[in-house]
Amino acid sequence: MPTGNNSLIVKLSCPNQPGIVHAITGALLKVDANISESQQFDSPNTGTFFMRVQFTTDANVADTEAAIADVVEEFDMDASVYDANAKTRTLIMVSKDGRTMNELLFQQHAGTLPVEVPVIVSNHLDLQPMAYFYDVPFVHIPINKKPDGTSNKAEAEARLMELVDQYDIELVVLARYMQILSDDLIQKLDGKAINIHHSFLPSFKGARPYHQAHDRGVKLIGATAHYVTADLDEGPIIEQRVQRVNHALTAQDFVQRGRAVEGATLAQAVQWHTEHRVLLDGDRTVIFE
Amino acid sequence: MPTGNNSLIVKLSCPNQPGIVHAITGALLKVDANISESQQFDSPNTGTFFMRVQFTTDANVADTEAAIADVVEEFDMDASVYDANAKTRTLIMVSKDGRTMNELLFQQHAGTLPVEVPVIVSNHLDLQPMAYFYDVPFVHIPINKKPDGTSNKAEAEARLMELVDQYDIELVVLARYMQILSDDLIQKLDGKAINIHHSFLPSFKGARPYHQAHDRGVKLIGATAHYVTADLDEGPIIEQRVQRVNHALTAQDFVQRGRAVEGATLAQAVQWHTEHRVLLDGDRTVIFE
Amino acid sequence: MPTGNNSLIVKLSCPNQPGIVHAITGALLKVDANISESQQFDSPNTGTFFMRVQFTTDANVADTEAAIADVVEEFDMDASVYDANAKTRTLIMVSKDGRTMNELLFQQHAGTLPVEVPVIVSNHLDLQPMAYFYDVPFVHIPINKKPDGTSNKAEAEARLMELVDQYDIELVVLARYMQILSDDLIQKLDGKAINIHHSFLPSFKGARPYHQAHDRGVKLIGATAHYVTADLDEGPIIEQRVQRVNHALTAQDFVQRGRAVEGATLAQAVQWHTEHRVLLDGDRTVIFE
Amino acid sequence: MPTGNNSLIVKLSCPNQPGIVHAITGALLKVDANISESQQFDSPNTGTFFMRVQFTTDANVADTEAAIADVVEEFDMDASVYDANAKTRTLIMVSKDGRTMNELLFQQHAGTLPVEVPVIVSNHLDLQPMAYFYDVPFVHIPINKKPDGTSNKAEAEARLMELVDQYDIELVVLARYMQILSDDLIQKLDGKAINIHHSFLPSFKGARPYHQAHDRGVKLIGATAHYVTADLDEGPIIEQRVQRVNHALTAQDFVQRGRAVEGATLAQAVQWHTEHRVLLDGDRTVIFE
Repeated sequence: MPTGNNSLIVKLSCPNQPGIVHAITGALLKVDANISESQQFDSPNTGTFFMRVQFTTDANVADTEAAIADVVEEFDMDASVYDANAKTRTLIMVSKDGRTMNELLFQQHAGTLPVEVPVIVSNHLDLQPMAYFYDVPFVHIPINKKPDGTSNKAEAEARLMELVDQYDIELVVLARYMQILSDDLIQKLDGKAINIHHSFLPSFKGARPYHQAHDRGVKLIGATAHYVTADLDEGPIIEQRVQRVNHALTAQDFVQRGRAVEGATLAQAVQWHTEHRVLLDGDRTVIFE
Repeated sequence: MPTGNNSLIVKLSCPNQPGIVHAITGALLKVDANISESQQFDSPNTGTFFMRVQFTTDANVADTEAAIADVVEEFDMDASVYDANAKTRTLIMVSKDGRTMNELLFQQHAGTLPVEVPVIVSNHLDLQPMAYFYDVPFVHIPINKKPDGTSNKAEAEARLMELVDQYDIELVVLARYMQILSDDLIQKLDGKAINIHHSFLPSFKGARPYHQAHDRGVKLIGATAHYVTADLDEGPIIEQRVQRVNHALTAQDFVQRGRAVEGATLAQAVQWHTEHRVLLDGDRTVIFE
Repeated sequence: MPTGNNSLIVKLSCPNQPGIVHAITGALLKVDANISESQQFDSPNTGTFFMRVQFTTDANVADTEAAIADVVEEFDMDASVYDANAKTRTLIMVSKDGRTMNELLFQQHAGTLPVEVPVIVSNHLDLQPMAYFYDVPFVHIPINKKPDGTSNKAEAEARLMELVDQYDIELVVLARYMQILSDDLIQKLDGKAINIHHSFLPSFKGARPYHQAHDRGVKLIGATAHYVTADLDEGPIIEQRVQRVNHALTAQDFVQRGRAVEGATLAQAVQWHTEHRVLLDGDRTVIFE
Repeated sequence: MPTGNNSLIVKLSCPNQPGIVHAITGALLKVDANISESQQFDSPNTGTFFMRVQFTTDANVADTEAAIADVVEEFDMDASVYDANAKTRTLIMVSKDGRTMNELLFQQHAGTLPVEVPVIVSNHLDLQPMAYFYDVPFVHIPINKKPDGTSNKAEAEARLMELVDQYDIELVVLARYMQILSDDLIQKLDGKAINIHHSFLPSFKGARPYHQAHDRGVKLIGATAHYVTADLDEGPIIEQRVQRVNHALTAQDFVQRGRAVEGATLAQAVQWHTEHRVLLDGDRTVIFE
């Protein structure tokens, strides 16, 4: 079995037509690509063709981009080439609850999640010690009402964007960051920000979803990881998981039990995103597991 | 280990206060009850105490009702005594899709669900052969628009209630019966009618929930079994289950995949109900599994 | 989006080397194939490359076989072409318990499983009525001890093979058929016979697995669908599912609760097999979900 | 609803006979107990009756023990009274992998697990920083071969028992401690030590279970939390959970994916144990969830 020194990934989408796979795999032969895993999907909803192919080669990312350039143009592809061993530079935003951040940082540390977290941002100081334990700089950006009744939100978001630039951030993860981002910021982070909502969306949008769930008497609680969009809790869903609850549990118990499933759901979504397995098909996601 | 010839169940609720369990178990000693399984729960939401106790005894239901009568009065209990081996007389309502009815009838036949189904009612004829295969009378009550623009719904519901009376029905199961019942009928069947909704409520209430779910791009679909109340899809939830779906499935695939989870969810809810394990705590259910 | 009249599937495996996907998709362009779904996997265990590609075309199966013949030879492929709308001719074997057979027949009837069951074989008569309800011929082949102490097993298996030939059977499903097949018969049905074992293999091989599970005090019971091989309960696993149990359930309860998960597990395995999504990688299966 | 200042738990088992619940609840009335949650179970396997009752009272543990003493003697009960708000003093043993320890320490810190961990013991130094982050003393007890070919295991275990005594340890948790304990030590810790095994027992006992699972081609991997007994991997099972895997994952991927389910399984088992919800019924556990 021939192998190259590099493991690369091509992720692409384009209007569907015959010959796409043949063309792209032909172009990849120019860099002696040996395919280890590949998936394709033709969306009946949007007429879009999606493909992810992982392969070994002696070529690098730039060589591969050059090799497929003609095909990308011919088929009007939205295509990217990634180094499968590169870690995604990820900024984590948190408030006070550290469960999901702990999950991400532990997995980064253990090497089970291909992320590198160069900075953590929070509107509170509670999680600074945990950030420092994992040797990650912690930037406190409080959100305050100013004396004139306005808030410093615009400044806070500007500071965040500075950090995104400064640290070459590729992904922003809202790990229970309890503030709504401005439309402007969301626009800038389009497709690059993942949020964890603590309900099985679209049930229980908005505030205090566990309390809503308890009032409704549900038998399963859940968590939803989704891309952040301007419509709150309406972004494309990446992953959802649930956990059984019963009548004896209080709303506060729901909060506590839910945290484990939030952490696992978010970590799974981040893993798929950083392995370049998630593609957008309108408001829905294609996941090449 | 002493055992009686009968296996009975006492199910009760009352305002919480000390001494309830001692009093009721004391009364049960009068019929030499030997407890095999028992559960209690004090609801912090409503201040109500719930209890289910199953025991063997040589006494019968009436003896036991007499034995506990004083305690029931003293503690202002809502209490019922059941024969654990009696089967609940259940009327099944269906439209065209037989998956959930098949689940219930097969389990009745196999003896794994303590129900006796003396009659099936449908607004269509499609499932008559399956009813006959299981030797259950099938009554066709079509819902039609009449020439004057009104429908025969009132007559249809009157006919249904006749059947409920005629067959001594204790439970009505809407096994994908695609008609809304009148408030009047729902009142009459209060706490005696279980519906299966083909979504993970409260997500996707109303019509075509799988199509709604597909549009939203969810990663899990679900089913909810609940008591029927006047507020559509708002009744107390008995059981919920989910099933993983992915981007490659169409809305029609959701419909087909969902049927298995609908059947399992409904069968579980019917089992708990007929084993007298479900108690109402306001809009929520207590399930003594 | 161009579409042909036929939906076909190519399933193949071969020693891994560069150029496979390019070559096969090139050959498929000769029949104007428009790929709707495709997956590839390079097994690090065996160095084997696996691929399944589904596409629309105006060509038929024979045309497509001809179109890919050169590539198949060049890459030493084990390749098959299937009509995606053809139903797999499936013989079901049962003993007395009808739960899994009911699942398969109901799904065939509802059109949710791409099988056609032309005949059912059983060593008992119990399930004849259900077979007839679904309009499937039922052949009773009892297994008896003969007066001289030998059994009629050899004759019974010969009769089974006659039926396999007579009905052009492509798949044999052991839906709780409680007899061990001879090595000779297993050889003949290699890769064409699926069994459901009522435990989470490799736990609790052999007889009475639910009783073994109950004795061990497990908290989850399961079912395993696998290809039948000469080593009992050791064949390649296609699907496994589990269900929660608790201390209050008896071994007999395990038996009853397990049936639902057995049915769902077997139906899933049959679906994947009949959609040509299962490929053998040594003793393991590759499932292109 | 009357409430006392203390929340207490009585956990008991005894040979089954009529009158147990009446007697114990009668005795509890002497301390004005107001029951918030209670469960009973009569084991058909061993003829043993099990009960857990949680209640509020103004009495303390000693008062309550005195109040029930006569009943305990009369019915030959094995009974204990606990303060529901007391945290179980728990010693954690680890080797190099910190996932399950991290789960336990984070939950202790967050207050979602009623444990107090006064000391961590390890045969390696890798996890010392994490212990210190959570302000828990870390004792390094290496296991070495000595020059004469014997090991220092006996001394190491003696040191462990000293720590158990010194810190008033009530529970020892083997959070991926990769050493076999001596029979003598297991005897001393009987019913007070919980291990997490990284397979769905009884599948894949012994070493490298994920690799065994990968070789067998299973579709679900699992974890089992059980009490430690002299028979390795044979102790009474408290909790089991599983996670789906597929053909594309390597044995090493199984190891990484399995860690999350190990952590969740162990945390659940520890929670039930420390809430006094686990009772032993021979080799099986009764869990009053």
